[in-house]
Amino acid sequence: MGKVITGGTMSLDGFIAGPGESGFDLLFQWYGNGDVEIVGASPNVPPLRLSRASADLLKDEWGNAGALVVGRHLYDMTNAWGGMHPMGIPVVVLTHRVPEERPNFVFVDEGIEAAVAKAKEIAGDKDVVVNGGQMARQALEAGLIDEIGVELVPVLLGGGTSLFADLGIAPVQFEGPIRVVEGTGVTHLRYRVHSSTDGTSA
Amino acid sequence: MGKVITGGTMSLDGFIAGPGESGFDLLFQWYGNGDVEIVGASPNVPPLRLSRASADLLKDEWGNAGALVVGRHLYDMTNAWGGMHPMGIPVVVLTHRVPEERPNFVFVDEGIEAAVAKAKEIAGDKDVVVNGGQMARQALEAGLIDEIGVELVPVLLGGGTSLFADLGIAPVQFEGPIRVVEGTGVTHLRYRVHSSTDGTSA
Repeated sequence: MGKVITGGTMSLDGFIAGPGESGFDLLFQWYGNGDVEIVGASPNVPPLRLSRASADLLKDEWGNAGALVVGRHLYDMTNAWGGMHPMGIPVVVLTHRVPEERPNFVFVDEGIEAAVAKAKEIAGDKDVVVNGGQMARQALEAGLIDEIGVELVPVLLGGGTSLFADLGIAPVQFEGPIRVVEGTGVTHLRYRVHSSTDGTSA
Repeated sequence: MGKVITGGTMSLDGFIAGPGESGFDLLFQWYGNGDVEIVGASPNVPPLRLSRASADLLKDEWGNAGALVVGRHLYDMTNAWGGMHPMGIPVVVLTHRVPEERPNFVFVDEGIEAAVAKAKEIAGDKDVVVNGGQMARQALEAGLIDEIGVELVPVLLGGGTSLFADLGIAPVQFEGPIRVVEGTGVTHLRYRVHSSTDGTSA
């Protein structure tokens, strides 16, 4: 059985998006500041150019991932990544309105528990990755997350959307970091969610 | 000439205080979760009990510190730490109302630049430490900070006061981390402020 993991790229002052959806250029500089090219499976998304350390970590984690859970908004906004997510794995889309069937995507309209359960079924022994933002918050609140990853970027955005914004079960303590990898312009931190989180905090 | 440094203990979602000034017990668990006792110079503040890694870092940084800059609110709230700050160094207090003279404390009412200048004069070759929160924000905005330290704690507080809250010069990019030390329940990260910060962002 794989793990269920989530996380996001975060500024040093705790924001995954700056004021008015700004700051993505600064947050995601590490996607393009290295020499190691990673060509994703999406026809629409250009290759990443990562530092060696970041690339090794991403290849490792992408290699272990068996399914991804995203919200309908991201699915629409990216135009379904042109038909295939960069990670090259099936995507479970949590939505209120199930569209027509489409290869590489599965639509679930029964809430985050059902979406993660479907992703686990697809992933088998591999990990399920839950996209950051609202999906991550809902999954954490429901006690579905095993590990959190934070890609910490040395920039202050001064405001915006916090990691796990509007979390209904705070405070939540994690164990770790169980892994720290220093890339160029980013520190990759991995934490384990205590198994008691859903029991004591909900 | 020493450096001017600042920072704070921060939750994984970016808060140096939780909602309604909560969460300090969780943020500062690392002050008491180890075996290495550090007895401070204040008669009012109990010893810290740190992990070996955190203790080694603190001793190193405290040993290099020559003066501290704090705001009047903290000075009043702590009752001047009983007459001596735990770090055992002179404290420059930025205030609107200069009180009577007092050993180990210097009062400045001409703004953050004057307070840091006075602290530098006192510190000589040693470092000046600017307390977190409002002092840190003002000093960073004024281009006075050389290094930032973040003690990152694996807890989500879900809201509260952000690191460098209400920063008027965001976005600000730092260099690093130039040092990463893994304590127990805390990751100590140190960043260098680009010398161009005050020039390009103010």
